[in-house]
Amino acid sequence: MSSAVDWPSIDRHGLNIALEQARKSATEGGIPIGSVLLTRDEAAPDGYRVLGKGHNQRIQKSSPTLHGEISALENAGRLKPEVYRTSTIYTTLSPCSMCTGAILLYRIGRVVIGENKTFLGGEELLKKNGVEVIVVDSKECEDLMRQFISENPEGWNEDIGEL
Amino acid sequence: MSSAVDWPSIDRHGLNIALEQARKSATEGGIPIGSVLLTRDEAAPDGYRVLGKGHNQRIQKSSPTLHGEISALENAGRLKPEVYRTSTIYTTLSPCSMCTGAILLYRIGRVVIGENKTFLGGEELLKKNGVEVIVVDSKECEDLMRQFISENPEGWNEDIGEL
Repeated sequence: MSSAVDWPSIDRHGLNIALEQARKSATEGGIPIGSVLLTRDEAAPDGYRVLGKGHNQRIQKSSPTLHGEISALENAGRLKPEVYRTSTIYTTLSPCSMCTGAILLYRIGRVVIGENKTFLGGEELLKKNGVEVIVVDSKECEDLMRQFISENPEGWNEDIGEL
Repeated sequence: MSSAVDWPSIDRHGLNIALEQARKSATEGGIPIGSVLLTRDEAAPDGYRVLGKGHNQRIQKSSPTLHGEISALENAGRLKPEVYRTSTIYTTLSPCSMCTGAILLYRIGRVVIGENKTFLGGEELLKKNGVEVIVVDSKECEDLMRQFISENPEGWNEDIGEL
């Protein structure tokens, strides 16, 4: 929106924070998907401020709704509607229909996705609704997911509602 | 699915449970939207079993993601994918895009909605994806919402991401 914003640099930071969250979840024995909601902040040293971060909590908290993105939004707490619209959400994996719906509910302006090879979510619906979608194609994000899925296929199917 | 199922009777019970949850939220000063996930159970006295119920928690828990339906799903805990598919979710208000997405994620088969006059959510997307959608047009559900919105328009706009 402003030419002064160094998105490539902010996006690297954002995806790294999401990836740290995914690794944290893996360390806890959970599903390795992480997310963070960032807003631009020109007064901050790196040009952004973290509003909330989180990771999938299906295994850790027996939660069917705390996917990575929902956790990040929940940890961000109550925000004014205008804050979401100029924010970016980073997620290590393509967002499922629930997380896609949450992004649309709050009209989050940008979504940066680590990878969509192990699961393809609602990217088309996001784009159709004017959300900027960037897929980074991160090998690290993909490797984390492939390892989890190969070790725990049932847990993964449960997370995406597959029989 | 089976002709032995008395859906009209079960649906009355289901919507009443959702409405009780909405009233509970109103009593707590919260947004009056309630929900319950039910599954048929022919061994149970009334032919159904409650899997989880809940209400909007924006005000009570400062939660941006615990809408009525998300609360009900969260309170139901981890379920096998096949359980959702033969379940019905009841909600006093037409589901927003996040809750619509959660219903689609778990392929919940039926959605019974109290009213859609104060807010129209993702009903078309649900139907397009094969979900049975029933709108009851409940005056009680509508009155609860109209009262909340007139007393707290900003809180309501925040809940649906409107400026």
